[in-house]
Amino acid sequence: MTMESVDNYQLFGISDIPDIEPGTDLAEVIVSAFEKYGGLKNQDVIVVASKIVSKAENMYCSTSGVSASSEAIELARITGKPEKVCQIVIDESQSYRTNGKALIAVQKQGFELSSAGVDRLSDELVILLPRDPDKSAERISLGILEQAGVQVAVVISDSHGRADRAGAGAVALGIYGISPLRITSTTQANGKVKYAEETLCDLLAAGASVILGQRGRGIPVVCVRGLSFQFDPTASVKSILHYAPKDSNVSQ
Amino acid sequence: MTMESVDNYQLFGISDIPDIEPGTDLAEVIVSAFEKYGGLKNQDVIVVASKIVSKAENMYCSTSGVSASSEAIELARITGKPEKVCQIVIDESQSYRTNGKALIAVQKQGFELSSAGVDRLSDELVILLPRDPDKSAERISLGILEQAGVQVAVVISDSHGRADRAGAGAVALGIYGISPLRITSTTQANGKVKYAEETLCDLLAAGASVILGQRGRGIPVVCVRGLSFQFDPTASVKSILHYAPKDSNVSQ
Repeated sequence: MTMESVDNYQLFGISDIPDIEPGTDLAEVIVSAFEKYGGLKNQDVIVVASKIVSKAENMYCSTSGVSASSEAIELARITGKPEKVCQIVIDESQSYRTNGKALIAVQKQGFELSSAGVDRLSDELVILLPRDPDKSAERISLGILEQAGVQVAVVISDSHGRADRAGAGAVALGIYGISPLRITSTTQANGKVKYAEETLCDLLAAGASVILGQRGRGIPVVCVRGLSFQFDPTASVKSILHYAPKDSNVSQ
Repeated sequence: MTMESVDNYQLFGISDIPDIEPGTDLAEVIVSAFEKYGGLKNQDVIVVASKIVSKAENMYCSTSGVSASSEAIELARITGKPEKVCQIVIDESQSYRTNGKALIAVQKQGFELSSAGVDRLSDELVILLPRDPDKSAERISLGILEQAGVQVAVVISDSHGRADRAGAGAVALGIYGISPLRITSTTQANGKVKYAEETLCDLLAAGASVILGQRGRGIPVVCVRGLSFQFDPTASVKSILHYAPKDSNVSQ
């Protein structure tokens, strides 16, 4: 993508998103919430917290029907997490590693995340990641186009920690309309051209997360305005994942 | 820190920063560059690319005087990087791992980064990270306060990749004035209070990197304006690093 003209942009949070129920049309909720902000604009990038996408897609999972394997019981002993939650993390993962406290898993779709993105809502209830976040992003964008007549890019963001430091940052799980990578080139002193790839979708997810925040800040949607980019309906996070399963282009 | 009122902010890049030479006073350069943007304001957060900090602090390192150990020769064979550069990465690191292409190292100060942050400028010249990026951030902020009379927070940012995806994101190496973490709490359905820590300094570094970009975009300084935060002169990235050396509070 070309993005020469990006030297400023702004972000604002949409604070009056109602509670999201399974089956909620997120495009409708977003279009409606933006009305009091003067509406959406073409070329806006809408960053949506994965949590509300999971809720709308009914990704709740009760621990009551889960029975913990010996592997899950051992993982619970190491991490201090409930055995049934550990079983769900194992079921959601391609592989995992733990250093005793953190449990880092490569989730089935290829995302490396804390606890494979399994989020504990209570002792009996967890919520899983959207099944196909690129598809979720596409659905929201196309819904907004249909309902409001504007073409926006959508980024589904989630939080994840780094091994070297405390706290959580944010990454993109799904994207629609804006390329996940930005490629820049420079000519070195010796004349060789060097290319650098930046994970633009993650930079946007992180910048928006200054507003989104984690749990309980009540702002699950952020508008990024002022970026100049070429709208790309084929953009996906899946396309840049090293551990994506081979059949991952099969849609839901 | 409290940050209840953060529901919007803006970022803009400072595009006419001159080439930085060893010994350049970055505070002076930044104050001067901001003049045509109406000047700096109290509570601005200035994000500075680590590269220009390294240049100002003369962190250039020639490969000519380096002799590669057998370990470096083996690492060069695996990664395809020059032997002498591998030796410098080893010298800069507490530990490292490689999957053949990527070389991920925990740098001496505790940052986990691609090639320990060693950046190859040519076959004969690399540039290393600032020796104490928190101190660098403090120096820039205090210089700006002295020269322009405004109190700004400073974040020194650098790029780094993730194992699960292509491209580079951005993290904070050093900080001054703004807490590196934001802590939020929520009460769960069962009445338990759950705390979440977000690495605010990394979110800011990433959001700014949409503008900073990597190599050759020519915008090494970004202003983040509109955040409301309590100025904290004790803030440091060092304080949240899991692998920071025990004696890391020794200043330069």
